[in-house]
Amino acid sequence: MANDTLEGNRVKAIPRQQVFHTGLIDAIEGTLADFLAAQIASLDAIDSSLGGFARTARDLVLAGGKRLRPTFAYWGWRGLAGPAADPEPLLPALGALELMHTFALVHDDLMDDSATRRGRPTAHRIFAAQHGARFGSSAAVLVGDLCLVWADQLLARTPVPPATLLEVRARYDRMRIEAVAGQYLDVLGETDPASWSVERALLVARHKTASYTVQWPLDFGLALAGVHDAEVAAAYRAYGKAVGEAFQLRDDLLGVYGDPAVTGKPAGDDLRAGKPTTLLMLARRMATPAQLLELDGAEVGRKAQVVAETGAPSRVEEMIRARVTEGLTALASAPIDPEARGVLIELATVATQRPA
Amino acid sequence: MANDTLEGNRVKAIPRQQVFHTGLIDAIEGTLADFLAAQIASLDAIDSSLGGFARTARDLVLAGGKRLRPTFAYWGWRGLAGPAADPEPLLPALGALELMHTFALVHDDLMDDSATRRGRPTAHRIFAAQHGARFGSSAAVLVGDLCLVWADQLLARTPVPPATLLEVRARYDRMRIEAVAGQYLDVLGETDPASWSVERALLVARHKTASYTVQWPLDFGLALAGVHDAEVAAAYRAYGKAVGEAFQLRDDLLGVYGDPAVTGKPAGDDLRAGKPTTLLMLARRMATPAQLLELDGAEVGRKAQVVAETGAPSRVEEMIRARVTEGLTALASAPIDPEARGVLIELATVATQRPA
Repeated sequence: MANDTLEGNRVKAIPRQQVFHTGLIDAIEGTLADFLAAQIASLDAIDSSLGGFARTARDLVLAGGKRLRPTFAYWGWRGLAGPAADPEPLLPALGALELMHTFALVHDDLMDDSATRRGRPTAHRIFAAQHGARFGSSAAVLVGDLCLVWADQLLARTPVPPATLLEVRARYDRMRIEAVAGQYLDVLGETDPASWSVERALLVARHKTASYTVQWPLDFGLALAGVHDAEVAAAYRAYGKAVGEAFQLRDDLLGVYGDPAVTGKPAGDDLRAGKPTTLLMLARRMATPAQLLELDGAEVGRKAQVVAETGAPSRVEEMIRARVTEGLTALASAPIDPEARGVLIELATVATQRPA
Repeated sequence: MANDTLEGNRVKAIPRQQVFHTGLIDAIEGTLADFLAAQIASLDAIDSSLGGFARTARDLVLAGGKRLRPTFAYWGWRGLAGPAADPEPLLPALGALELMHTFALVHDDLMDDSATRRGRPTAHRIFAAQHGARFGSSAAVLVGDLCLVWADQLLARTPVPPATLLEVRARYDRMRIEAVAGQYLDVLGETDPASWSVERALLVARHKTASYTVQWPLDFGLALAGVHDAEVAAAYRAYGKAVGEAFQLRDDLLGVYGDPAVTGKPAGDDLRAGKPTTLLMLARRMATPAQLLELDGAEVGRKAQVVAETGAPSRVEEMIRARVTEGLTALASAPIDPEARGVLIELATVATQRPA
């Protein structure tokens, strides 16, 4: 991925690919591990039960995942900062995005009552195994809250000028508002799927995923560069919106047809929960009366077949392709570092054609 | 309350008591109302259901309450800033404390399944009435999350130098960590009250209430003054710890013997939930074998009588008095504005002898 012959490599004697891909993720995880060790020690000193609570939070944060948000933020920064800039000062801010994401996942999994995430038990299930379901729910709310506050503490350690940090925080706050608003729409849709529509499902995709996963992380990275460039901001925004929606549409397909061994989540969860995704809303719109009866009443495995028979998955694949094209077009003429452009082009594909 | 003959009054031609007590609360609520109106409008523009969600959050924030945290923060600031300083720039920061407190109350009430708060239905009950209990829980988690992010957004608008704001945020983050940690201990104690003790109940009081309600708000105010004074910080810390614990001990008594018409909460909630407060842990320690049987098996009204018969409430009253004395002693020699000292002395009584 990307050009690995630039000067920075020779200086550091580390292959650029290492430094900026696996290497970047490793560096973020190292920053997180150091930060979390100190937080755990301070809570452990109050009461050992708090140490245990904090360790569970740490394990959830470090359990892997695609680290897409810090990756987009990094390349958003890099697009303006260029290949010579040192990414080291970004690490706390990039780690904060992952802590914030753990907050969102823990609360979402509780609301969806998902059993597994990243191939492991979800937070509320871990705590429920300790002291019952009610304790499990409460402790999961609190683990999420803890990760959100930790994110702010780590973000505060980003060694950039205070004015830059305030700009970064403004983006970060809007990103968090979109994540909460999108999740509210998601939960509301599940409550009354019959009143939902393809349009409203796309609204959820736009706010819950496009804004939160791609658009604001890119803008967050841009703010970290400490430069205002309206043209780049507009290109990132258009790319983020289109690629982010495509990312969610891929998630809809994986939620029904993904391999649990690869996604780490049980297959058919969305169908079981009756989540009115764009895929399912389209299937209902395209279904024959007989198919509609089966979508309402059949068991999960058969429902997945019926969704396929309506032709909705192919339509969603087309929507993904159209959005990826739109995102790449927006990026094509943006005045950014060529390597960043190349990677963002590749990320658009990785994020929307992924198996998990 | 406090001296109202100082010069500032004549300058502003407003009775000092108005400006800094009812007037201060009114000003904070005005700041909150303006901020929230703008947030509601921006969420409404995405989807009307998000506007409704945000309005519910606003109503919870503006439903009243003692506004103790901003009050302590204000007087913490005032202790160093003195009577001539303009409090106007503090308002966003003080409002942020109330938004953060709504987050904590909404999540706490969900965990305790409390039916009312400030005399009105709690968030999860409001949402449950709309679309059922499951939706109620999820939406309450999200309303809390929303308030926490709003708090950060409002805090960011505090017109103080960036370096001061970073100091304020560091306190704010520690305050939030203590609130989450204290609540975790609280929930854990309820899960297995038999393993709990007077000492562990006091640990909850120290972290959940003393740190979160008094100590960190005072320190938050001190940071807003933009001055470092180790002597004042130490005095505030000692006062905050002692008065805050006394505050929680009063809460324990009100949770069993408070008048629901005054507290806005049903009487006996703590007994019903089996919350292992200092009061109940002491009652168990002081109980005869016959009383212990009744504490385990009797109905709530009788349990409250038995707790009284053990003598635990009088013991708790003594503990409150001892702590208030300790707090006032710490404050007596602190080099702070005399009016601030006077009000903090009065607040120690108000917060620990209150009927609600």
